[in-house]
Amino acid sequence: MKTDSAGLQVLSWEECMRLLPEVPIGRIVFTENALPAVQPVNFCLYGSDIVIKTAPGSKLAAATRDAVVAFEVDDFDVRTRTGWSVTAVGHARAVYDPEEIERLSELPLQAWAPGNRDHFIVVRVEQITGRRIVQPDGTRRE
Amino acid sequence: MKTDSAGLQVLSWEECMRLLPEVPIGRIVFTENALPAVQPVNFCLYGSDIVIKTAPGSKLAAATRDAVVAFEVDDFDVRTRTGWSVTAVGHARAVYDPEEIERLSELPLQAWAPGNRDHFIVVRVEQITGRRIVQPDGTRRE
Repeated sequence: MKTDSAGLQVLSWEECMRLLPEVPIGRIVFTENALPAVQPVNFCLYGSDIVIKTAPGSKLAAATRDAVVAFEVDDFDVRTRTGWSVTAVGHARAVYDPEEIERLSELPLQAWAPGNRDHFIVVRVEQITGRRIVQPDGTRRE
Repeated sequence: MKTDSAGLQVLSWEECMRLLPEVPIGRIVFTENALPAVQPVNFCLYGSDIVIKTAPGSKLAAATRDAVVAFEVDDFDVRTRTGWSVTAVGHARAVYDPEEIERLSELPLQAWAPGNRDHFIVVRVEQITGRRIVQPDGTRRE
């Protein structure tokens, strides 16, 4: 078990890609007016790409257009103080190709928030890192 | 009920500050090597400041030193597709003053991860925004 300088277990690429779709909500991290910004979104994977849906004119659509973003998911348990997190980093792009929109429309991806959200953003996973907290007695969260 | 362009309920400052300490884990968002970065941490409030603990030589300590960071908390329910998120933005600073360290050491803030984590970082909440998903039938998460 490889651990980092902070004592957290370092997850492999395969483990990160396995955990990524285990939770329904992730957080997309970007820059807005030169300030760090973050927004929770529900998402799907398409191959190893992260797919989210938003409104075409939304701040998120504007701020992530051809930007490098981070995308974070995690799952923690208060009682056992265990958990894991996975963060992907990559280029985000808006989808305009009608054939690609048709393909992505078949994903089981329905925005939780109300309103028109037929604009797809795809984040290519170029880096992915993950950490797991394992308690000294071996307690861990899968 | 004020809603934004995406149909989400806009939370007031007071509501955001009430919700912020309702969850044990938040995500600190910063820049690392010119890329967006995010790390989950447990935290406490001291007044309206966000207090986290890390290792003195950690990447997080270095990356947040006198930087403007975002800090996000959220709580979502998969079954009802409801939830809320709150994001604070402000300057982060490392705490070196022994008296302040003594005061902060009295907070019920114990790092979940193993290892030496006696370095305090304080984020002053300068902006705070929050959103809540309310379903058309009025279902919401407090």
